[in-house]
Amino acid sequence: MTTADSLFSDSVPIAVDAMGGDHGPVETVAGAVQAARGGARVLLAGNPDLVEAELDRHDVRGLDVRVVPSRGVVGEQERPVRAFAAKPDASILVATRLVKEGEARAVVSMGSTGASIAAATMLLGTFNGIERGALGGPIIGCAPRTVVIDLGTSVDARPRQLADFAALGTVMARVILEVENPRVAVLSVGAEEGKGNRLVKETTAILKASGLNFVGNLEASDLPLGGAEVVVCDGFVGNVMIKLTEALGAALARDVRERLGRQGEELAERIYDLTNRIEAYGGGPLLGVRGAVIVGHGRSRAASIAKAIHTARMMVERRFVEKAEAEVARLRAAIGTESA
Amino acid sequence: MTTADSLFSDSVPIAVDAMGGDHGPVETVAGAVQAARGGARVLLAGNPDLVEAELDRHDVRGLDVRVVPSRGVVGEQERPVRAFAAKPDASILVATRLVKEGEARAVVSMGSTGASIAAATMLLGTFNGIERGALGGPIIGCAPRTVVIDLGTSVDARPRQLADFAALGTVMARVILEVENPRVAVLSVGAEEGKGNRLVKETTAILKASGLNFVGNLEASDLPLGGAEVVVCDGFVGNVMIKLTEALGAALARDVRERLGRQGEELAERIYDLTNRIEAYGGGPLLGVRGAVIVGHGRSRAASIAKAIHTARMMVERRFVEKAEAEVARLRAAIGTESA
Repeated sequence: MTTADSLFSDSVPIAVDAMGGDHGPVETVAGAVQAARGGARVLLAGNPDLVEAELDRHDVRGLDVRVVPSRGVVGEQERPVRAFAAKPDASILVATRLVKEGEARAVVSMGSTGASIAAATMLLGTFNGIERGALGGPIIGCAPRTVVIDLGTSVDARPRQLADFAALGTVMARVILEVENPRVAVLSVGAEEGKGNRLVKETTAILKASGLNFVGNLEASDLPLGGAEVVVCDGFVGNVMIKLTEALGAALARDVRERLGRQGEELAERIYDLTNRIEAYGGGPLLGVRGAVIVGHGRSRAASIAKAIHTARMMVERRFVEKAEAEVARLRAAIGTESA
Repeated sequence: MTTADSLFSDSVPIAVDAMGGDHGPVETVAGAVQAARGGARVLLAGNPDLVEAELDRHDVRGLDVRVVPSRGVVGEQERPVRAFAAKPDASILVATRLVKEGEARAVVSMGSTGASIAAATMLLGTFNGIERGALGGPIIGCAPRTVVIDLGTSVDARPRQLADFAALGTVMARVILEVENPRVAVLSVGAEEGKGNRLVKETTAILKASGLNFVGNLEASDLPLGGAEVVVCDGFVGNVMIKLTEALGAALARDVRERLGRQGEELAERIYDLTNRIEAYGGGPLLGVRGAVIVGHGRSRAASIAKAIHTARMMVERRFVEKAEAEVARLRAAIGTESA
């Protein structure tokens, strides 16, 4: 047990969707074992035969890793609600139900993002006035303490939703990234007030009255420079940004490899790592739901999955969900309405 | 005169806003001289004393470079229309007027983008049914034949505007980038039809009836892979993408320099160049206006400005504006309406 890990009390385990992701259950089980070696207690929701077979490949003596049987997996291309009806004991549902029933204190999944969000929304519920969870986090390694939110759960977001993102991002920056007084900016096409689209202008008016540390517009050109700790945007724009960042980094890393060969390997890896943060960190919290949920990157391998479990433990230990719900309630009071 | 340049007939010169950009008139004049050595005829609109002084620093014997006096410059932060009223002979107005009056066949400016667009819209006019010019072009060196449009002139764009962008981008890909049958895609958050925001869905319905080579949605992750030759998006999103790409490339290039020192210089330059295309090419055409207009990057230096002048000559020689206007008219007929 490392010093950092000894901070966790771990009275209740973390549930992991062992079947989710591009490399489940091989990498999810390996990641869970790694996390357990760091002191985590893990419940693996999955096909018992497959998961036990993977566990057999590791030395798990003395580790608290148990299997909870599930049947079926929700694929990336499936519509979650329809899939849930057909597979009521799918791994993501079993894992999320463990949290609902108090058997686990957080759920971690590398599987379908849509399914993770739908399961959390349905089984755990959202904060008062919030329709659906938001995804946010640092997307560029050069700005490791800048939370970009929303990364794709709400396209066609309304100004009040962006205000919610600002509150949720503020709590994430404060609690997870340990920034004392996070600066909140709205992503726009110019730094001056008044530059932007309708959404930016209407959001600006709300954020000014929000009691948050609102600093105005931020251009995408200032994003890698860490111009603010919370940058809010519509989920369409955030999703485009994270996918562009990831793909651009991957393309540049490929280019470095092609030109420098093995000599360029370390540099290529660094470029990839700086631009593929969610993959590196395994995933980020789903914000706005009544439970600790980590939505991971499908491509994640064992080390990243172990990091995601670590983040989940940290979220619980620091009472992230409670603080976020309180902050959203405070925001609602400040901007003078109870609902979106 | 190079072989490529000898393709141009150059009966009428190109107008250059000599005062615009971060480095005008030093670099604009140097760029014009370079272009003239390649066979271009150039009219430099600017403060005669300053421009003549710069010209004196070059050997211009036998070159067709002349000065057309202007008074004042429109700055990046000024509101164009107000600035035009105060400075009726500002360099961008003088340069654009030369095109209107048939003294020049194209205008090139590295100055305020807003002022270039406003001057072109006001003096040259836009195509039937188009309210304002659009900016588009390749933004990532890994996908050199992919035109992303719009890059920022129209935030809050409507579906019909995106259809116009598709037609304009198609002509740009065909005429400037020499792609025979450009694939047109709409930028979205998922590759499957039905994924996206309202704008994407409504644009999809129009593009299906457009007669263009429409291939559906394209995710930002496929952008560096050249998944289509024309990618349409709202100007807010396009502006975010180009600024993020430029800044990310600059940050990664900086990182390479810091880690590898002089050894990394060539690689750092390559990364910067792959991600800062508009700066490398000096600028791109303003699409949808009745005249050949190149809107440049403020940071451009002489070599890029010479390239921008070269692009302007190519636009004229290949009858770009006429072809674009015809394509937009054809689109309007296909989608069954005359106006936006």
